[in-house]
Amino acid sequence: MDSKHHQCQSPHQVLVIKPPPAFVVHEQYISNKFQILKAYYSPLPTQDFLRANPQSVKVVLCSGVTPITAEVLRDLPALELVVTTSTGVNHVDMVECRNRGIRVTNVRDVFSDDVADVAVGLLIEVMRRISHDRFVRCGHLLGSMLGGKRIGIVGLGNIGSKVATRLQAMGCIVSYTSRQKKHTTPLTYYPTVLKLASNSDALVLCCALTKDTCHMINNKVMTDLGKNGVIVNVARGAVIDEVELVRHLVEGEIGGAGLDVYENEPNVPKELFGLDNVVVLPHSGACTKECFQDAARLVVGNLEAFFANKPLITPVSNDF
Amino acid sequence: MDSKHHQCQSPHQVLVIKPPPAFVVHEQYISNKFQILKAYYSPLPTQDFLRANPQSVKVVLCSGVTPITAEVLRDLPALELVVTTSTGVNHVDMVECRNRGIRVTNVRDVFSDDVADVAVGLLIEVMRRISHDRFVRCGHLLGSMLGGKRIGIVGLGNIGSKVATRLQAMGCIVSYTSRQKKHTTPLTYYPTVLKLASNSDALVLCCALTKDTCHMINNKVMTDLGKNGVIVNVARGAVIDEVELVRHLVEGEIGGAGLDVYENEPNVPKELFGLDNVVVLPHSGACTKECFQDAARLVVGNLEAFFANKPLITPVSNDF
Repeated sequence: MDSKHHQCQSPHQVLVIKPPPAFVVHEQYISNKFQILKAYYSPLPTQDFLRANPQSVKVVLCSGVTPITAEVLRDLPALELVVTTSTGVNHVDMVECRNRGIRVTNVRDVFSDDVADVAVGLLIEVMRRISHDRFVRCGHLLGSMLGGKRIGIVGLGNIGSKVATRLQAMGCIVSYTSRQKKHTTPLTYYPTVLKLASNSDALVLCCALTKDTCHMINNKVMTDLGKNGVIVNVARGAVIDEVELVRHLVEGEIGGAGLDVYENEPNVPKELFGLDNVVVLPHSGACTKECFQDAARLVVGNLEAFFANKPLITPVSNDF
Repeated sequence: MDSKHHQCQSPHQVLVIKPPPAFVVHEQYISNKFQILKAYYSPLPTQDFLRANPQSVKVVLCSGVTPITAEVLRDLPALELVVTTSTGVNHVDMVECRNRGIRVTNVRDVFSDDVADVAVGLLIEVMRRISHDRFVRCGHLLGSMLGGKRIGIVGLGNIGSKVATRLQAMGCIVSYTSRQKKHTTPLTYYPTVLKLASNSDALVLCCALTKDTCHMINNKVMTDLGKNGVIVNVARGAVIDEVELVRHLVEGEIGGAGLDVYENEPNVPKELFGLDNVVVLPHSGACTKECFQDAARLVVGNLEAFFANKPLITPVSNDF
């Protein structure tokens, strides 16, 4: 399989510093059309590999596991395109890209349904204590009903809206906060996450990670959410102050958490593994065959468009 | 606490052979109003206890863990009322009750939302392989997307309808089978479970256990569901031929299962514990504080109505 990849004589080089999740799927789509430069097969440290290799590489394929920092960009003087296999671009230095005129593509919202499903699954598991039940047959361990509960969604974008639809079908009372009130939804809007937390039994985090949302879920928000409050995070780990989250969970200051993302992935704070009211997943919100195939089609479409000097399929706006 | 219960001098006796799940909740509501005869505190076998104790007991409080068989009924010659803390009455010999003129009450549909939520949680867990992810950090383990999947609901009653609403919100294509086509829903109807299985990626079992549904999910149905098919059971264990289910799962002849109920509860076939594509719960579909409180209110309401010679609140029709 691999010798075949190396034999591809396409003049179109695509640099991969570390393989994105399920890169095996992407590889099936791109290995015959493009020459993949695999930095991760080199014994050299990344920086040395970049400096020792063709300075002519125009495209890098990346994901959340490979931050495209200003330093990496400095070592790629001919770079014109960053293709990320994710929806979020928080791992790409967008300011530096804009300054250099480097374009960025993502995979649009292909993962939204899957991530929304996992958010709902985590909420059911934590509130109904399903994960605990699996191991301990205990007739007296009662979870909480979801129907009638007030669920606050942080970030009513694509994923947040899909989570709202699902939870409304379960009889939950859904409200939200976001940068601005959305006039397309009748859901109750709270202008701040603090107000949302005070009025919610659980928070589901679905926002992008930005300067403004980093550590947005802090000590004060958790205190206002209260001792029975549940937090589900399918956004990015750093949206929560993780040290404070662990402390609140260990000390019983909040009711529980369902987490798919962490501040320093792939590390999961070890204190969380011992807690009955916590369900941890390894950032697998988007891990379905169907999603990865959709994403791979967008990745290859963007690469083909780039090398053919055609408009990119899913360019990320870089005007901020 | 217990001495208080024993001190209740009410002339109204309620026999409890084994405590129903979360009886601690029911007890709070009934212990001050009725004298609870606890057969399970006696060292005698049940039959001996019944024969040694007041033959005047008019009311028995039960649940799925205490079958009220013809034998039990024979030992209770003065019995007038069976109060079950469940929705289902498959553990009560309804024919014998009818013959004897013994009335039966259940707790109506108080558990429907909770059971529907657990059905959805199990489906997400099995199809998305969340339970596996929790333990094994494996980037290549891809679950299946729920959106667009054909989900067949067996039994479109209260719970089945609520499951349908939830799955439609997730983008699933929902169809069903039941004794008769329902004219109140636009969902596709299949007249047999075999036809439903052939046209579904997953089956969710929500029907009552009756003579007709016992072992309805047999070898043939599982074969028609196919190697990638998933079965979720929140109905009753005996709706599935459990020996066949275990064989199909162990041999990879179906894709996976999420089970809350078993043929011989509380026993769970031990082969299931080792399988990555199986999630087992200990019949906890209805285990929320809110539900048990609602159920307890109905139980006490029926007991009060009975002893006051008023109409029962939630009598079960016994015309079949």
